[in-house]
Amino acid sequence: MDYIKNIREKKPLIHFVTNYVTVNDVANATLAIGASPIMTDEVLDAPDMQNICNALVINPGTLNENTVKAMILSGKRANELGHVVVLDPCGAGATPYRNKVIKELMDNIHFDCIKGNISEIKALANVSQSTKGVDADVCDTVTRENMFEVFKMAKELSKRTKAIIAITGPIDVIASENSAYITDNGCKEMRAITGTGCMTAALIAASLVANEDRLKACVAGVIAVGIAGERALKYAKGTGSLHIGLIDELSNLDDIRLEGGAKIERFEI
Amino acid sequence: MDYIKNIREKKPLIHFVTNYVTVNDVANATLAIGASPIMTDEVLDAPDMQNICNALVINPGTLNENTVKAMILSGKRANELGHVVVLDPCGAGATPYRNKVIKELMDNIHFDCIKGNISEIKALANVSQSTKGVDADVCDTVTRENMFEVFKMAKELSKRTKAIIAITGPIDVIASENSAYITDNGCKEMRAITGTGCMTAALIAASLVANEDRLKACVAGVIAVGIAGERALKYAKGTGSLHIGLIDELSNLDDIRLEGGAKIERFEI
Amino acid sequence: MDYIKNIREKKPLIHFVTNYVTVNDVANATLAIGASPIMTDEVLDAPDMQNICNALVINPGTLNENTVKAMILSGKRANELGHVVVLDPCGAGATPYRNKVIKELMDNIHFDCIKGNISEIKALANVSQSTKGVDADVCDTVTRENMFEVFKMAKELSKRTKAIIAITGPIDVIASENSAYITDNGCKEMRAITGTGCMTAALIAASLVANEDRLKACVAGVIAVGIAGERALKYAKGTGSLHIGLIDELSNLDDIRLEGGAKIERFEI
Repeated sequence: MDYIKNIREKKPLIHFVTNYVTVNDVANATLAIGASPIMTDEVLDAPDMQNICNALVINPGTLNENTVKAMILSGKRANELGHVVVLDPCGAGATPYRNKVIKELMDNIHFDCIKGNISEIKALANVSQSTKGVDADVCDTVTRENMFEVFKMAKELSKRTKAIIAITGPIDVIASENSAYITDNGCKEMRAITGTGCMTAALIAASLVANEDRLKACVAGVIAVGIAGERALKYAKGTGSLHIGLIDELSNLDDIRLEGGAKIERFEI
Repeated sequence: MDYIKNIREKKPLIHFVTNYVTVNDVANATLAIGASPIMTDEVLDAPDMQNICNALVINPGTLNENTVKAMILSGKRANELGHVVVLDPCGAGATPYRNKVIKELMDNIHFDCIKGNISEIKALANVSQSTKGVDADVCDTVTRENMFEVFKMAKELSKRTKAIIAITGPIDVIASENSAYITDNGCKEMRAITGTGCMTAALIAASLVANEDRLKACVAGVIAVGIAGERALKYAKGTGSLHIGLIDELSNLDDIRLEGGAKIERFEI
Repeated sequence: MDYIKNIREKKPLIHFVTNYVTVNDVANATLAIGASPIMTDEVLDAPDMQNICNALVINPGTLNENTVKAMILSGKRANELGHVVVLDPCGAGATPYRNKVIKELMDNIHFDCIKGNISEIKALANVSQSTKGVDADVCDTVTRENMFEVFKMAKELSKRTKAIIAITGPIDVIASENSAYITDNGCKEMRAITGTGCMTAALIAASLVANEDRLKACVAGVIAVGIAGERALKYAKGTGSLHIGLIDELSNLDDIRLEGGAKIERFEI
């Protein structure tokens, strides 16, 4: 396994149009794993930034009308240039405006990976297809009991969008059209710090730039954050030091730790 | 005392239209105390966010014309829905534009609590009433010597606005129309980290959602941050680790620690 | 040497129009060194903020059309009032829009110090003069071997702009028209945390307000961050705790530590 080594050697330059809540954590997590971050959300500036970058991460967490334009134009440029593009549909389903924006992003941009929690992914699946909604009784929390219905939804969404679908939660599901991984990494204490999801999207983008197998690259990005959090939990005194320890552990992460810590299982779907 | 227990059980969802300087700390402090944060300041999005939230905190620290519109519409929606609304008039008095915005917020929104330092509260009291200004010689720092003149100003402001008035400083004053608490919690080192005031507003909002007695709920929010800071100071090596320790201590805070650490005194005013 | 003592005594109030990625670090670093930060980037608000401040730092890292207007009007007001103004041309050279903005800033505002990495300073030097570009073969990394060509570029840029030019990197160059310092402080691990450059600009501004000798004041600001980072590296477990330790060390910094840790050399150029 050379997932982390490849990131540290290729040093991807990643452009983020992202929320201002967790942006500092995203930048530091990106640096900690050996990639470099650039943040810009001005429509006159952001699309051109793709010219010097290797990837784009779009996170509409604190979207506004101007930054949404920057997201769309940056995404189109990234697609033209064949760059990795990751969508973190932060807050999808929370308001009508967010759903409208998610639909607009999905209609205009091809994503290599879409990463969200189960409710965000369900909301995204619903707004991005005109025919019929996602079954309302798809679970609200992914467990080993209901994971096959989640696989089904992820498979269909992946087939339609050609994106890897990463659904984070107590257990994570990372799925393509044909295969799915579930991962058990991370800890419940991580839910009490903001930004772990946003950092995961950053690491997925870095891993997709540096690694060939798209599905496995996304799995590596997801478990990197989980493993870092598990390691940090051992000495954290609370959520503040868990947050800092998570960055420390990302900066010290290598493939031996990733492989040793990985709790993953593969399914053909 | 069940102030913290009630927050952790009710898990209030709090919408913030706040500054981008301390927003990450606000989110992490909110999570640390057992509530959940959502940040959005787009006028097309923010008012609708109230539909799924329990409270709103408005902080115009890094205001702009668009976010001010979002503050006002979100505040009106929160009022319609009977949600808790807290104002942190960050920077009130610093510029004419800020004063104009504060007046606009006060004219359009009912607040359950207004929390600021003495100069912000004086500026707010002045701009929000047309008749006469707050006595120019109301003190610039609250002490045990001058606290009765501060009680008087807070009582009048509370009577007029129907809000609890929380004035933070070396000693804090939290007052309704009829009663006031002073609190001695916190430490001077906390003044050298940004965001303690913003976190206090978040904790007040969480506490107001979860607890019945409005005045005591605000006191609990104020002293929670102070006690967390005092505890963190014991092992902090400087302002960086004090900042992280404060979040750690909030995440570990319970009512036993709150009650044991509280340095408060009540006055009828 | 009283550089730090002077800052802690004079407590400069510094207005930042800066990026939202590192703004929390900038605020905390400013407080840690004994100064106070105020952030605002609304065009109706920012220029007036200069009336109560001692300095302005402009950093267009996450610029947008509105904040660029606020930068220019705030800079003009600061110049009228004779305040210290520092430019951190974050991302200069990365896009045509950034270069246009840098030129506009340079055309409208006098800066006391311009601080950037070598590629930013080269880009700035190119866009801000109409006659001829900076020699394309000026190095991309400053070393002891090529520092004299860097001195030459810095001397010319300083002569033309009347600003101190601070070029940060593995070794830093801080130059006026006639003299230059090189400094060896800092450590390579600091490159893996975001915000060290932005914090450096804040400390330069604080130091310029509090200290007479402009060139030495800038040197003090640059090495303060480097020395704090070196000290924090001794006990950091990774980049997260290095980041926090750096703030801790800034809060504990005094002139004895600054003088004891300084690795500087002066040249007449």
